[in-house]
Amino acid sequence: MITFTTWLDYLGTFAFAISGIRLASAKRFDWFGAYVVGIVTAVGGGTLRDILLGATPFWMQQPSYLIVSGLALIFVIILRKYVIRLNNTFFIFDAIGLGLFVVVGIVKTLDYSFPIWVAIAMGTITGSFGGIMRDILINEVPLIFRKEIYAIACLAGGLIYWACISLHLPPVISQVITAVSISAIRILSVKYQISLPALRGES
Amino acid sequence: MITFTTWLDYLGTFAFAISGIRLASAKRFDWFGAYVVGIVTAVGGGTLRDILLGATPFWMQQPSYLIVSGLALIFVIILRKYVIRLNNTFFIFDAIGLGLFVVVGIVKTLDYSFPIWVAIAMGTITGSFGGIMRDILINEVPLIFRKEIYAIACLAGGLIYWACISLHLPPVISQVITAVSISAIRILSVKYQISLPALRGES
Amino acid sequence: MITFTTWLDYLGTFAFAISGIRLASAKRFDWFGAYVVGIVTAVGGGTLRDILLGATPFWMQQPSYLIVSGLALIFVIILRKYVIRLNNTFFIFDAIGLGLFVVVGIVKTLDYSFPIWVAIAMGTITGSFGGIMRDILINEVPLIFRKEIYAIACLAGGLIYWACISLHLPPVISQVITAVSISAIRILSVKYQISLPALRGES
Repeated sequence: MITFTTWLDYLGTFAFAISGIRLASAKRFDWFGAYVVGIVTAVGGGTLRDILLGATPFWMQQPSYLIVSGLALIFVIILRKYVIRLNNTFFIFDAIGLGLFVVVGIVKTLDYSFPIWVAIAMGTITGSFGGIMRDILINEVPLIFRKEIYAIACLAGGLIYWACISLHLPPVISQVITAVSISAIRILSVKYQISLPALRGES
Repeated sequence: MITFTTWLDYLGTFAFAISGIRLASAKRFDWFGAYVVGIVTAVGGGTLRDILLGATPFWMQQPSYLIVSGLALIFVIILRKYVIRLNNTFFIFDAIGLGLFVVVGIVKTLDYSFPIWVAIAMGTITGSFGGIMRDILINEVPLIFRKEIYAIACLAGGLIYWACISLHLPPVISQVITAVSISAIRILSVKYQISLPALRGES
Repeated sequence: MITFTTWLDYLGTFAFAISGIRLASAKRFDWFGAYVVGIVTAVGGGTLRDILLGATPFWMQQPSYLIVSGLALIFVIILRKYVIRLNNTFFIFDAIGLGLFVVVGIVKTLDYSFPIWVAIAMGTITGSFGGIMRDILINEVPLIFRKEIYAIACLAGGLIYWACISLHLPPVISQVITAVSISAIRILSVKYQISLPALRGES
């Protein structure tokens, strides 16, 4: 079970890093710059969460996240022409990673004895701030605030987790339900182009 | 007295959140994106201060800041046409909030046994970095560095607080003088369009 | 010896702050805004490192970094026409500062009992994130990801340090070799316009 979760974690990290590296390449970043953007996309949300919790950032405790991000860089450099064809595959990995990352954020925050509403906020931060930092680094308006359901899928997942533990479901069951729900919301919102209403600007 | 300060704190949070939500709406952010920008504007400065101090961020200790920011979002969505007419009211709330936030930053830093110059820096960060993070999120050059007196009103407030405690004034008196001075400097600088000289670029 | 290192530290801080202030002036920031950008450029990388390590940020422990950044602001305001002529001098200071800052980051991280790969990452962050934060504040795509060797000189320095301690060289010797190597890589890469390959964007 641990091995399976770890594999999903690496897949999600890989997919998040790929998204950062691809957007950096569109801005003509050099290899190392693209690597940095890939890492920030993959670990930025969890790092902000850990700083807010007062924890040592998770990626400083084992080198696998920097290594997986490095593999993502090599993948993009060497297999550039396959990357576009694999768009749908990456998207699925990304959605799976999103669900997993949010659950990890929620569980870790509860482990630090914070109340559930802080855990929901931290789950949302874990899932969405990597992409926000990526867009800040490449100097674009954050994508996740303007397109298909993304950050609010994390929030919805947090509320689902809350419902699950309020119903006294076992932790593992609650976590699986939450992660699958988030991935499903994300995938369906893109498939059917569902987005939140935009705020109308003042004229 | 505590109740009065708490009310001012909520008013300031509301006004800061409104400014973030309005600027996000001008960029066509969706509702949740606008909410995030509102929260970051309202609590971003204090959060950076708490991280630098090694403290648990203040908004993670009680949900009122996220709730007040949510009310600001609802306000902008529902009462959109009144928002513009209330410009002056929001500006006053914002100026009051600024004075209060800077004082909170100074007092908290001194409570953590840092010297006064660190407290002045933290007061300035508390008052001004929410607006800086807001402008980074909406991908604009930070407004507070280019227009009427803002960040330097926080610095001036810090120096006034220093003068007050050097004169052995009681803490509460020093805090009120500082907060009122900052709000007054901010309001007068906008009313009379006073700004710092800009640095001339090299040709 | 300590005095000499401290002097280099101030020189590097001054050069980093000057680079932030000059770029802020090109964006018509006011004096205080330019000062903030100068400070962030000079201490931003070390601050992020200290937050990640769970340490109190170094510049909050003695006021010299804020003072040196203030001197840099005064220098740019008063001696504006000399600044351009001194381009080469500032560049040398900047390269010396880079080498020193990376070594400080590596040594501090090892002092906090992290493994060498974390120390290399922290050295790179110390040397390069000030410039990244500067470019975010002035709303530009980070320069160091697109031009001559910069961030990767920090990474190379980290690997050199690792080699030195693996060869059981004394700490001071390892530190000098690392700092000089980083400065030399940086200077030579600009002199001969060496840069990493850019990632090609997808069409």
